[in-house]
Amino acid sequence: MVTHSLAELDGYAVDLGGTKLAAVSFERGEIQNILVRPTRSADGPATLVRDLAQISKDIGYKPGASIGVAVAGKLDAQGLWSSVNHAILKNLSKLPLSECLSEVLGAGVVALNDTQAAAIGEYRFGAGKGASSLAYLTVSTGVSAGFVLNGHALRSANGMLGHVGAMTSTKGSGSCGCGRVGTYESIASGRAMEAIARSLGHGELDCHQIFAARSAGEVWAQQIVEDACASIAELCANLTAILGVERVVLGGGVGLADGFLDTVKRHLSAEPAQFQPEIVSPLLGKHSAMYGVLSSAMANGAAS
Amino acid sequence: MVTHSLAELDGYAVDLGGTKLAAVSFERGEIQNILVRPTRSADGPATLVRDLAQISKDIGYKPGASIGVAVAGKLDAQGLWSSVNHAILKNLSKLPLSECLSEVLGAGVVALNDTQAAAIGEYRFGAGKGASSLAYLTVSTGVSAGFVLNGHALRSANGMLGHVGAMTSTKGSGSCGCGRVGTYESIASGRAMEAIARSLGHGELDCHQIFAARSAGEVWAQQIVEDACASIAELCANLTAILGVERVVLGGGVGLADGFLDTVKRHLSAEPAQFQPEIVSPLLGKHSAMYGVLSSAMANGAAS
Repeated sequence: MVTHSLAELDGYAVDLGGTKLAAVSFERGEIQNILVRPTRSADGPATLVRDLAQISKDIGYKPGASIGVAVAGKLDAQGLWSSVNHAILKNLSKLPLSECLSEVLGAGVVALNDTQAAAIGEYRFGAGKGASSLAYLTVSTGVSAGFVLNGHALRSANGMLGHVGAMTSTKGSGSCGCGRVGTYESIASGRAMEAIARSLGHGELDCHQIFAARSAGEVWAQQIVEDACASIAELCANLTAILGVERVVLGGGVGLADGFLDTVKRHLSAEPAQFQPEIVSPLLGKHSAMYGVLSSAMANGAAS
Repeated sequence: MVTHSLAELDGYAVDLGGTKLAAVSFERGEIQNILVRPTRSADGPATLVRDLAQISKDIGYKPGASIGVAVAGKLDAQGLWSSVNHAILKNLSKLPLSECLSEVLGAGVVALNDTQAAAIGEYRFGAGKGASSLAYLTVSTGVSAGFVLNGHALRSANGMLGHVGAMTSTKGSGSCGCGRVGTYESIASGRAMEAIARSLGHGELDCHQIFAARSAGEVWAQQIVEDACASIAELCANLTAILGVERVVLGGGVGLADGFLDTVKRHLSAEPAQFQPEIVSPLLGKHSAMYGVLSSAMANGAAS
């Protein structure tokens, strides 16, 4: 594996999540510009590919430069892109993403699952440095993880690896867009928290409003966040059991919300010691995946 | 990684489980002799090491031959051996197993977690051949897994990787010897099934008697096995979500019991298609770990 130092990062990175599409330009390891747009998932897969190409050009990408594209959902070894939670990325099944991106952006584009990219970013340049078994856990529109084990980023040929939001939780009972019941994504994701608030009669609130209500002392909002944090603590303990995870970097819009990390830690402290990984915030803020996917794209270019 | 063909397997393998200690001798890939003794866990760690050394000598091992030792519990990168479920291997904490074995058996002994060894065995020589993401799942005295991802056996530096029996299940409520509550091991392990039968007033039955009662039409025994199989099906679906597992080899004394595999498959068929891995029986019977750990020992000798 070719690994670049942070100061060598030069090029562009794009990150397509369930809610936001973002692009950044890097020069000598520093972010120069950022563009953020809504993810237009409801308009279908062709729109997603057009929007990915457009934001790449708008941030300044030109053929010959390094570019990495990180996306939510599963990306298999053939570069085919599908949704796991069909309520987040709609009608997305085996879209030849790598092929489409090469056509519109030129050869050498590297595409990765966004949470895997975030794990690579934090492992190489951030809060994951030195961890022998690292998980980056995104709690956002969905819930997913990326893993770096003994210095190697884990990927599965079918692209499913890391979709931990589709695992079942002892604290879950709701249905999930992946087709299962009682998943982590049905309790702790932003969409789930919004749906729970709605079912309790609080109308169309977004996650920021739920966290604001929590801060204002609303008991129902405190309970929603408490349940989400308890389930994420359970998930962290389960990750120690299955992969020997020693450090969890907790990111994503919900994961980074005020008080979320501390509440997860409080619940985790009730687990036996051997099931308590260290839980930390990302050092690269919201941009971990950008660092990871661009460094993978540069390594790929150097290797070819 | 040096990989030997089956016909090249020559040497000795020992497997220490929660209940049984076994040793086999191989010549040209065929098992020549088998010794089986009870695991004397209650007598303390020193007894376990003495028994491992004694059975190795009794099966015919002499310094200079290849030997691999597979053990239940966690084995860290320093070769320190500890229990995860303290009710199965008692008072076992950071015993320097690799060092002790080298002292009594000579240099070059390779020690591995037994289920990781089983995954390697089935991947190289058995039902796991060709799988891009394989899990070997042992359902026996405990519940554990070994993984081979893209041709590489996964290990974590702390040795915890694969202890999936310590993950929580939506179907669990009992306490587990690992200190957690509602784990897979508290529902589906042989010990758990025996404890459940006892709590229902059926006395001190062992697993074979519970399966016999099930075959004889006893409703309580049918329910115990049904619950165990439902939880193992849930675990298999969870393994697809976290590691993209495509094939599960289901082994262990309980996993190999009559009707267990088919009942797991029936429960798994209720999951969405993308969470249904293929589930198969081991081709190497009860000896998958023996093949895996000896082939690892031979590869280690060839590499050094």
